[in-house]
Amino acid sequence: MTEAQSDPAAAQALAEAAAAAMWPRDRAAQALGMKIVRVAPGSALVTMTVRADMTNSHRVCHGGMIFSLADTAFAYACNSDNRNTVAAACHIDFLAPAEEGEVLEAEAIVRSQAGRTGVYDVTVRAGGRNIALFRGNSYRIAGEVVAGAQAAEFA
Amino acid sequence: MTEAQSDPAAAQALAEAAAAAMWPRDRAAQALGMKIVRVAPGSALVTMTVRADMTNSHRVCHGGMIFSLADTAFAYACNSDNRNTVAAACHIDFLAPAEEGEVLEAEAIVRSQAGRTGVYDVTVRAGGRNIALFRGNSYRIAGEVVAGAQAAEFA
Amino acid sequence: MTEAQSDPAAAQALAEAAAAAMWPRDRAAQALGMKIVRVAPGSALVTMTVRADMTNSHRVCHGGMIFSLADTAFAYACNSDNRNTVAAACHIDFLAPAEEGEVLEAEAIVRSQAGRTGVYDVTVRAGGRNIALFRGNSYRIAGEVVAGAQAAEFA
Amino acid sequence: MTEAQSDPAAAQALAEAAAAAMWPRDRAAQALGMKIVRVAPGSALVTMTVRADMTNSHRVCHGGMIFSLADTAFAYACNSDNRNTVAAACHIDFLAPAEEGEVLEAEAIVRSQAGRTGVYDVTVRAGGRNIALFRGNSYRIAGEVVAGAQAAEFA
Repeated sequence: MTEAQSDPAAAQALAEAAAAAMWPRDRAAQALGMKIVRVAPGSALVTMTVRADMTNSHRVCHGGMIFSLADTAFAYACNSDNRNTVAAACHIDFLAPAEEGEVLEAEAIVRSQAGRTGVYDVTVRAGGRNIALFRGNSYRIAGEVVAGAQAAEFA
Repeated sequence: MTEAQSDPAAAQALAEAAAAAMWPRDRAAQALGMKIVRVAPGSALVTMTVRADMTNSHRVCHGGMIFSLADTAFAYACNSDNRNTVAAACHIDFLAPAEEGEVLEAEAIVRSQAGRTGVYDVTVRAGGRNIALFRGNSYRIAGEVVAGAQAAEFA
Repeated sequence: MTEAQSDPAAAQALAEAAAAAMWPRDRAAQALGMKIVRVAPGSALVTMTVRADMTNSHRVCHGGMIFSLADTAFAYACNSDNRNTVAAACHIDFLAPAEEGEVLEAEAIVRSQAGRTGVYDVTVRAGGRNIALFRGNSYRIAGEVVAGAQAAEFA
Repeated sequence: MTEAQSDPAAAQALAEAAAAAMWPRDRAAQALGMKIVRVAPGSALVTMTVRADMTNSHRVCHGGMIFSLADTAFAYACNSDNRNTVAAACHIDFLAPAEEGEVLEAEAIVRSQAGRTGVYDVTVRAGGRNIALFRGNSYRIAGEVVAGAQAAEFA
């Protein structure tokens, strides 16, 4: 990581390699029609269109679907340095409803990363409105997202 | 509500009527294969089997799917007195991973309900393990889940 | 409020009048040696020096004292339009310890305010480090901070 | 720990020894007049009387003082097996105001403890009312509360 941290191009390549390795296994994100628009060291932008089968009894997007989008952006951001990292806890504030057909956009950015724990902020927007604010606590577990990536291609 | 609150059978009938009205419109919960096992005044039990298309890049159940289950149990519990209520904020702690094929069970109970705001606790379990702890803040909006239910059948 | 919202100088005067009315009654903030450095519509900056009697068994600033500072900045920000507002729920992430003698600075900004509910972010810093991230949910209750202020001086 | 975990009396003695070691250094808790009523493995009960200098501009107990009490109960519960543990994040829901002169009681219980991370629930009550619900995430750091206690007196 010393290499990647001191070399922005290597850090960006590592973030993209981690995302590329995660995506094929990320069946839930695929099933919900998400798109990983952009990843960078400590950040990610993910979009999802609200489908009819994502609505709830109030006829707006189910909170769980909004959370799933935010949580996915969080995951790509907190694994962007290729160290296996999981969500330990998340907090979400629902600010406004999202309607069927709207494109939701979740942008995650790192606020803190120290030792094994991190804090990430995700803002979910649609059509210029803030839909939800999400804050996630991450925890590093053993292993790399792309095994050997740091030693091989990136070091 | 005076009637329902003072009459346990009426309160139970109202909770069941609210759930029965919510379910056909709750397309997200249906699409995720959830089952409303039980509702009662201020509580709900909902189950969901972890499908392959609910897993993430770590090959375990996506946190967003666990949240969606908990959030759904929360919704049925906080709408159980037939007053339209939405989630304002939620907090979730992920304690242990859930595997494909496991049956997740989310049990929601009211901790506080005063004026328009409430606090509900949801515990998500699988095979005797605690998978996640969820705490939701609810907010009452205008209207009833079953329009006129309280005046008509239940009052 | 229409007047204040459309007139930045009136909104600033209202925020300052609300803070001036709150401070003499805010005995806890006084007892902890806090200073209201700045208020503005939707924001506040409050400082506090970590005293010996604010430390805990780990010999660093007690988390409750850090929270108290953040919560106070939140209070001045969310009451800055003179409508009585209380904290409904708060979340805090502790990022780094603060030592005795350090000056803590808490900056609160509004993230959302719609109807009776709001979301505010507070960042607590010391010596250039982030000490804690706080997110508060506010709820408007009846009444004004400065009774009649909006009708009299500000309308 | 194997010894203490399998021997309830040893675990209780360890919890009491940890609390006894923490208290003299816990200057903030002392300054706020708290009392450690009871500690046990994974739990603690702490009380505090709301003093005039703990009230805020709404003339009720400052949220930061309620949080401080809950956080202290959390600290004694999560350090009760003598391994140095700190708060990583906390969430609090304020349910009802507490008045000057009331005795607040905070009861903490462990909900999960796995590896280095734990989740604890704290309920703050006064006069039979629930005042606040608190959920804390703990993180073990290096060292013991009572150095050598487990090897010496308790093993």
